[in-house]
Amino acid sequence: MAHIAVAPGVPGIVSLLSFRPETAGPLTDLTNVLLRAPNSLTPAERELIAAFVSGLNSCVFCREGHTAIAAAYLQDETLASQVTRDPESAPISDKLKALLALAGRVQQGGLAVRHDDIVRARQAGASDTEIHDTVLIAAAFCMYNRYVDGLAAWTPDDREGYRQQAKQVVEHGYGNQPEAAAPPARG
Amino acid sequence: MAHIAVAPGVPGIVSLLSFRPETAGPLTDLTNVLLRAPNSLTPAERELIAAFVSGLNSCVFCREGHTAIAAAYLQDETLASQVTRDPESAPISDKLKALLALAGRVQQGGLAVRHDDIVRARQAGASDTEIHDTVLIAAAFCMYNRYVDGLAAWTPDDREGYRQQAKQVVEHGYGNQPEAAAPPARG
Repeated sequence: MAHIAVAPGVPGIVSLLSFRPETAGPLTDLTNVLLRAPNSLTPAERELIAAFVSGLNSCVFCREGHTAIAAAYLQDETLASQVTRDPESAPISDKLKALLALAGRVQQGGLAVRHDDIVRARQAGASDTEIHDTVLIAAAFCMYNRYVDGLAAWTPDDREGYRQQAKQVVEHGYGNQPEAAAPPARG
Repeated sequence: MAHIAVAPGVPGIVSLLSFRPETAGPLTDLTNVLLRAPNSLTPAERELIAAFVSGLNSCVFCREGHTAIAAAYLQDETLASQVTRDPESAPISDKLKALLALAGRVQQGGLAVRHDDIVRARQAGASDTEIHDTVLIAAAFCMYNRYVDGLAAWTPDDREGYRQQAKQVVEHGYGNQPEAAAPPARG
């Protein structure tokens, strides 16, 4: 049960966004800008960074949600799961591996990022904007993960629910799901 | 030197917000809603939570910036510094002590928050909304701190600069400082 009186049966961050619409606005805007807006990193790559960091933070709701969204973009559940659990051995670009490694440093703390992490990303072809966005996505999920678990929001354990929600996000973005869709957007 | 090509001589998060206006919008909106908007927690109390978490994350730019803003609201630099360094011994309400303890748990991780932390806050008079906002402020500063230090944004070391900037934030809010003001808003 959540630590505060959110609507029962509403999963994860959605219950928190409904509880406090004043903060839901900028949080949803931030998620859309980071994960959906036009970017040289694909939506799938950005969702993988979000899922990977959520896994490092042991936030099951965000890890499962964003892994499912990445899988929906990639049309490959096995690949999405492999990347978020062990990126270095996954069949992805050297650039994405370097950015995931950078995201992992950010998860430990801002001061954990080393010059070598940046050099690796740059040598693999990452631009300054891609480095910026990777750091900010990783940092943002250190927020979302703490928000969800710090308030003990409900984490469903049925994979099909995450799949259905992933379809909604891929089609409509965050915060724009049809009212009837359940469970709604996750952060 | 920052890890990416931000404008030289611009401090901390301000240099990052200028580098990427697309993400600056929702980030600034979030800061204003969390720390400035009408709330049963005073702006000073919310700034103290931000400064305390930033200290735990060893983010000097955010710790100094938000301690200075809290001090400007309180008109008491000694008290602001004492609260952010050792809240339990500071002359503040039991409710604020409990909320700062909760924020400290969130800084460790969402799953570090215990039922007892919530009980303590509630017994000291905190409402569900105050508990929600404390968790989200703490989580948000786990983002801002990682953003600033993960990209190695410049951290000035002159206290007077933080004082001057604090005055601007108290008068105008975040992101609304006059163009001439330097250094601008911090997160």
